[in-house]
Amino acid sequence: MTNPTACLLIIGNEVLSGRTQDANLKFIATRLGEIGIPLREARVIPDVPEVIVSTVNEVRAKYTYVFTTGGIGPTHDDITAECIAQAFGVPWEPHPEAWALMAAHYASREPPAEFNAARQRMATMPRGAALIRNPVSIAPGFIIGNVHVMAGVPRIMQAMFEELAPGLRGGVPVQSRAVHAWGMQEGRIAEGLGAIQARHPEVDIGSYPYYRENGGGVALVAKGTDAAMLDRVIAEISDFVASLGFTPVPGEPA
Amino acid sequence: MTNPTACLLIIGNEVLSGRTQDANLKFIATRLGEIGIPLREARVIPDVPEVIVSTVNEVRAKYTYVFTTGGIGPTHDDITAECIAQAFGVPWEPHPEAWALMAAHYASREPPAEFNAARQRMATMPRGAALIRNPVSIAPGFIIGNVHVMAGVPRIMQAMFEELAPGLRGGVPVQSRAVHAWGMQEGRIAEGLGAIQARHPEVDIGSYPYYRENGGGVALVAKGTDAAMLDRVIAEISDFVASLGFTPVPGEPA
Repeated sequence: MTNPTACLLIIGNEVLSGRTQDANLKFIATRLGEIGIPLREARVIPDVPEVIVSTVNEVRAKYTYVFTTGGIGPTHDDITAECIAQAFGVPWEPHPEAWALMAAHYASREPPAEFNAARQRMATMPRGAALIRNPVSIAPGFIIGNVHVMAGVPRIMQAMFEELAPGLRGGVPVQSRAVHAWGMQEGRIAEGLGAIQARHPEVDIGSYPYYRENGGGVALVAKGTDAAMLDRVIAEISDFVASLGFTPVPGEPA
Repeated sequence: MTNPTACLLIIGNEVLSGRTQDANLKFIATRLGEIGIPLREARVIPDVPEVIVSTVNEVRAKYTYVFTTGGIGPTHDDITAECIAQAFGVPWEPHPEAWALMAAHYASREPPAEFNAARQRMATMPRGAALIRNPVSIAPGFIIGNVHVMAGVPRIMQAMFEELAPGLRGGVPVQSRAVHAWGMQEGRIAEGLGAIQARHPEVDIGSYPYYRENGGGVALVAKGTDAAMLDRVIAEISDFVASLGFTPVPGEPA
């Protein structure tokens, strides 16, 4: 059985302008790997309706799961929900459950806050959407088809992801093993490492140089779904590293 | 005159698996904005030849400039240069200038290092490529057509970007002005802010909540190419914030 696949859409001018450092890709990629839904692509796209609509339609046809972050707040540039309704060809309308949830939330504030038009936008969703609970700040995300729409604020996104994760049909978890060696250079090991990769096409071997003030080294990482095979491959890599006169240290460098 | 546009391709399984936090998008987006070449899209794609080839061909037709990071080292998963040769339909072959540069570099090491097959891969490029000098670790990047191929290691990528930047034909620099206010909530200001945005369609107004241990606020950012207009818009936003009883503070929050 092959694993399901995923694509992440990071929606927001602020990431493309360099104002905001994305902090969601790494979290989502890691968590998806753990539940056996490898992330195959991520795109950062602007708050432009045609771009959001066409991108959502392209990737939802291509991948098992699509996740989006950003653009579901109350302001004028929060257009993700509308665009996704358009992509699915369904009305963008008040969602009764979200509406009730948010009306109650603003009423219960001390002093009560107005559930105004801007806040009502956050309870307006594509028809047929299922809510993703938001334990941090109430305004929910939603699921429609294979598209999972989450907030862009990392703390809220992470909480939403953990809410939706139990409902995902994952595959075999992707595991990883690493070894590193100080003083080693990629150019020294590349050929031998390539030979090991060629012998184990079912394992994904990566080579990542690292740099410290007083020098550097290379970390070698094997990823795959067969734990015993990963152990064998990382042992083979360690032997190879040692054969070149370097000291293989298990794990990633500190 | 409309500004030229740019797309960034971040090439590497390590970013999609969550192993590595991308640190290049923010730098490139910021620098491109400064030289008037707004970044319109970024994609993170895996080390899979068909994906790299088809993505490069799609985006180089769509944007004025394409930048890539990652996949130009000496190891088996460094396949960016080959794939870009394939995308352009030209041979992937030893680049005489890069070859001479790197041969001399390894010969001059103390003790001399071997310019082996793996290292020779880093001097093998699409025919017709122009080099991007690498003052950090010698192995150059390259330019072919409108595609600019850089290393994935941030320190090296940044040095390469500064080497190629003077050759880019930029447009009017994108500038930004910000104001923030503690205690403010997006839901309070969204409607008024939307009205200001509607009056100034040539300015891009963004609203970004921020969170601290003891509370939070909202930062409001205006971006555009007309400095005097940005000053007027940010003054208008500040007046609006003050009219709601919050204290507008110039700039982004600390």
